[in-house]
Amino acid sequence: MEPGEAIARMPAAQFGDRVAEAVERRRSQLLVGLDPRPDLLPVELRAAVSAGRAEAANACLRFCTGLIDAVCPYVVGAKLQLAFFEALGADGMRVYEDVCDYARNAGLLVVADAKRGDIGSTARAYAEAYLEREGGAPVDAMTASPYLGSDSVEPLLAACRRSGTGIFCLVRTSNAGSADVQDLALSDGRRVWHQVAELVAQWGEDLVGERGLSSVGAVVGATYPRAVGEARRLMPQAILLLPGVGAQGATPADVARAFTSGPASALVPVSRSIIYAFRNDGPDWRKAAGAEAARLRREVWSAAGW
Amino acid sequence: MEPGEAIARMPAAQFGDRVAEAVERRRSQLLVGLDPRPDLLPVELRAAVSAGRAEAANACLRFCTGLIDAVCPYVVGAKLQLAFFEALGADGMRVYEDVCDYARNAGLLVVADAKRGDIGSTARAYAEAYLEREGGAPVDAMTASPYLGSDSVEPLLAACRRSGTGIFCLVRTSNAGSADVQDLALSDGRRVWHQVAELVAQWGEDLVGERGLSSVGAVVGATYPRAVGEARRLMPQAILLLPGVGAQGATPADVARAFTSGPASALVPVSRSIIYAFRNDGPDWRKAAGAEAARLRREVWSAAGW
Repeated sequence: MEPGEAIARMPAAQFGDRVAEAVERRRSQLLVGLDPRPDLLPVELRAAVSAGRAEAANACLRFCTGLIDAVCPYVVGAKLQLAFFEALGADGMRVYEDVCDYARNAGLLVVADAKRGDIGSTARAYAEAYLEREGGAPVDAMTASPYLGSDSVEPLLAACRRSGTGIFCLVRTSNAGSADVQDLALSDGRRVWHQVAELVAQWGEDLVGERGLSSVGAVVGATYPRAVGEARRLMPQAILLLPGVGAQGATPADVARAFTSGPASALVPVSRSIIYAFRNDGPDWRKAAGAEAARLRREVWSAAGW
Repeated sequence: MEPGEAIARMPAAQFGDRVAEAVERRRSQLLVGLDPRPDLLPVELRAAVSAGRAEAANACLRFCTGLIDAVCPYVVGAKLQLAFFEALGADGMRVYEDVCDYARNAGLLVVADAKRGDIGSTARAYAEAYLEREGGAPVDAMTASPYLGSDSVEPLLAACRRSGTGIFCLVRTSNAGSADVQDLALSDGRRVWHQVAELVAQWGEDLVGERGLSSVGAVVGATYPRAVGEARRLMPQAILLLPGVGAQGATPADVARAFTSGPASALVPVSRSIIYAFRNDGPDWRKAAGAEAARLRREVWSAAGW
């Protein structure tokens, strides 16, 4: 590779390096998962919901920005679950954009949990939608589905190269049904997800930053601690995104083995047990979210062992 | 099953029956694929694009509604590729909603090509977003990804039961990279996509309408004619959605074997070769789209052989 080529392909703000820097600076691997559901909002916001979808969307905006203020000292980033914004239609997508801006202005990494995957020409449109809008990337990374294979991921990788963003590819998800396809036994004795993990490692090979972390990460459910360890070995340079802690039943201890590639080699998104903490610990929803985030940040940092 | 339960679970307007009725009435299995790309719009619409995203979105709205008017006599429905609307942000999603309404008011079936797939609680939000908004289902069906397994699809099936909508689950996609995951050899000699096809058949079993077609269909690329035949055998009651005709290289003859379960047992979405026909056959983009749709409708109807 020529030196000039290397510079062109590796922007200074490579995603893995940015995550490494952010985790060390903020001393946290925790992401707050923003899954706003109008029917579960705090009572002071829920009143507006029945007035219509635009009002419900605005209530969700106030909820998300309030949560960001409350948990900001304890998290390294925010993961926005697109489905909950899409459920509010175009108004919801406006709120999604506003929440992304708000979180980035607060200094947080932002992950769009979109799980998109489509043929090449369509994947390019998804890259435009989530990774490189005019005026700069609106988020730092998005989640992607591997079912359509390499040529469906390549346009996302090209966008990552250009904009210094990243993707987290679904590998072994946190839900019980993940076994139906991901755990199928292959003719060589491995599972489907093992092969997907190898593809993810390949896709990320030439997108590894100076800190040894690739722009191509992987989603691996914390609910399967043994799979977390296997995933770590199969994808040593991938940042693992580990959902499942909290409402889905996993604990910070379950993700410990994900961190053997460094303190920023895994991120732990937690949604329900933080953002709806007030339902158990109420009535101050901001305070309840902040307290739960502070607790989880300590536990995850400690489990990571760095 | 109690009689009352059967009535509650099977609304009169079951998706398979509605497709069967629509195909016979309109004598077409063709869907126009609406993939609006601002940079490819006809010159009379492209002028607005540089003025900003809202203007680009409005230009796409005019393009899509003009196309619907032009091809309406020749198609049974429209397939909207979400990625191209999402690429225009909240403005694009407003246009998506308007185009859905316009197409349904024109009497067309509408398929949201979203390829969503997520854990149960999130899948419920996707169902709300695409299959059962307040005031009725905004579309007739959506595409879904199977990678997360049964519990990720169940909330979509529940929505189909309630609202008379359908899903098309990705099984064997039209792109070259589909082999990377979908074609992996399992320990019993089958391929991954064969097992996914069996899951799709199971998921659709109790959603079969009076005409023998299930609300749970499957996406199978027309670019792999042999796979189309296999898919037909593995999922005899599924409506097959067969992308790949036109720009991706498949011909109407390649999809013939999909129709052995009836004239409505497969649908053929065609996007680029219809909506951008004016780039070869210009300058009247409406006329060019109408002519190509008329031609493809005849060829598909003839290949189906009913």
